[in-house]
Amino acid sequence: MQALPPDLAALEAAARRLEGVAVKTPVLEHPVLNARVGGRVLLKVEALQHTGSFKFRGAWNRISQLDPVTTPGGVVAYSSGNHAQAVAAAAARRGLTSRIVMPHDAPPLKLAHTRAHGAEVVLYDREAANREATARALCEAHGAVLVPPFEDPDIIAGQATVGLELAAQAAERGAQLDDVLVCCSGGGLIAGVALALEARSPGTRVWAVEPEAFDDTARSLASGRRETNARAGGGLCDALLVPTPGELTFSINQRLLAGALLVTDDEVKAAMRFAFEHLKVVVEPGGAAGLAAVLAGKLPASGRTVGVVVSGGNADPGLFREVLAGEPGGG
Amino acid sequence: MQALPPDLAALEAAARRLEGVAVKTPVLEHPVLNARVGGRVLLKVEALQHTGSFKFRGAWNRISQLDPVTTPGGVVAYSSGNHAQAVAAAAARRGLTSRIVMPHDAPPLKLAHTRAHGAEVVLYDREAANREATARALCEAHGAVLVPPFEDPDIIAGQATVGLELAAQAAERGAQLDDVLVCCSGGGLIAGVALALEARSPGTRVWAVEPEAFDDTARSLASGRRETNARAGGGLCDALLVPTPGELTFSINQRLLAGALLVTDDEVKAAMRFAFEHLKVVVEPGGAAGLAAVLAGKLPASGRTVGVVVSGGNADPGLFREVLAGEPGGG
Repeated sequence: MQALPPDLAALEAAARRLEGVAVKTPVLEHPVLNARVGGRVLLKVEALQHTGSFKFRGAWNRISQLDPVTTPGGVVAYSSGNHAQAVAAAAARRGLTSRIVMPHDAPPLKLAHTRAHGAEVVLYDREAANREATARALCEAHGAVLVPPFEDPDIIAGQATVGLELAAQAAERGAQLDDVLVCCSGGGLIAGVALALEARSPGTRVWAVEPEAFDDTARSLASGRRETNARAGGGLCDALLVPTPGELTFSINQRLLAGALLVTDDEVKAAMRFAFEHLKVVVEPGGAAGLAAVLAGKLPASGRTVGVVVSGGNADPGLFREVLAGEPGGG
Repeated sequence: MQALPPDLAALEAAARRLEGVAVKTPVLEHPVLNARVGGRVLLKVEALQHTGSFKFRGAWNRISQLDPVTTPGGVVAYSSGNHAQAVAAAAARRGLTSRIVMPHDAPPLKLAHTRAHGAEVVLYDREAANREATARALCEAHGAVLVPPFEDPDIIAGQATVGLELAAQAAERGAQLDDVLVCCSGGGLIAGVALALEARSPGTRVWAVEPEAFDDTARSLASGRRETNARAGGGLCDALLVPTPGELTFSINQRLLAGALLVTDDEVKAAMRFAFEHLKVVVEPGGAAGLAAVLAGKLPASGRTVGVVVSGGNADPGLFREVLAGEPGGG
């Protein structure tokens, strides 16, 4: 039986659980960016969230409901790195052990931070192994609870609090959001944001942003069924490499999304440089996808108000140095 | 006749002028940082301010009071880079022309952004020329108004809004600030913050943080008179190289500061890496001085609540790449 999408009450319950635990991340607006696109861009900066990405929201919403006494085996998760850190940090806060299945080519910074939160990291090969099967085996061996990265109503409800906050923060500054851009991989963040905006900002169109070579959601929206990426790894946006949309997340996204936009690696790098130079925020490649789409004019923003979720900031220092060595972000 | 320090009414008037124009910058708190120091650290992140530093506050407070009709000659300022961008942006917003005297070795990013705001940049040699005299000559030639970097009640009142906001944001999260660390060069920011906290958080001790080789305020506080740095330039913290405290700012700081702390260039670089790795904020060297002092244990923070003003984020990409190539920030 497929799980049902979380309803508004579930989103509001997630917001209450996160109150005082997660960062209510700021919405930033920059004159140089507004001038560049000829409109108004509101950036919801989840890079400033605990563990450096929105993933902490879903992880805490799920894990805070577990009882350490009745969950002695702790939690297990599989993740390219941001969900990993989030689950490790949330589990530690809740007094639970955590075991995280991560790809062997995950950025060193994400591996180090996950371990720093006390998690046991189990590496796998993206091209060869089935990470879900590995995670399930760990759950059975240790009597642990699996915390899925996106295919779970509690995870989606947690990520939805990004949308609840964005709607409220836009209203506070008298802005009516025409469009909101959200990067998309498994689709949990954008499904949550779309559910939140359906309730709190119903006229707003929500767009998925994907790397060109990992356009499974764009093709799935076009064909009406869940399509799969040709490549399993190797992309710049290490956080956006999930091979196919989730069943639950796609059922939500198919109903609520306006469409999907694709960005190139060069456009993502230019957005990372722009964020460094003008916004003073460290953004990782996957986190910069939405900003890249706006800067590259993938969605006309002239005379419009566009919200962009800057989803994560866990950029590896080595990669970041390479990106900074490119052309300036302009302005 | 020496100008008088701004009173609380002047600080509140500045806050009203900045409302909806400046960014009410977020206060960030990070579990890894709290664990590292064994206390609670509240970071007031002015790197996220318009033009990338707190300087926009003072500049707008002063320049918004000028009438473009009666000020056809525009404004003039001298600055190592952050006040330059702030004055250029504030003048452009107010419909005034701007001419900025900047050192020839100012970071390229600061020069480029100042020009991008429409300012005419006049370069000088830190070791040779008197920048104040150059600026005064420009004022006479063009009938322009000088906007000083710190020695002005309106500038100090503008920077004081950092302290008003920090006091309110700390109270919102139920925190009582034991200490607040602020970097210090000419002393305008810390004088403003100290005045604001005197009114709104009177038990809080305010500490100046300076680079070791540019410790004029530390020595001035010790001797009771305005001392001068031996070197005029060449420091890592390009924003903190003013040779001697201002007369007005020192009169305030002498009365209100608890003392001064010194940081090394290596400590500043480690703080920049920490901010990159954990906070996801781009911090320039001068802006990282306060964080460096906390991380290096210059002020015992165990069991205490310490506010730190992260004053600016205009780090040059080349310098930032070098800093990232160093040892990781830890955590």
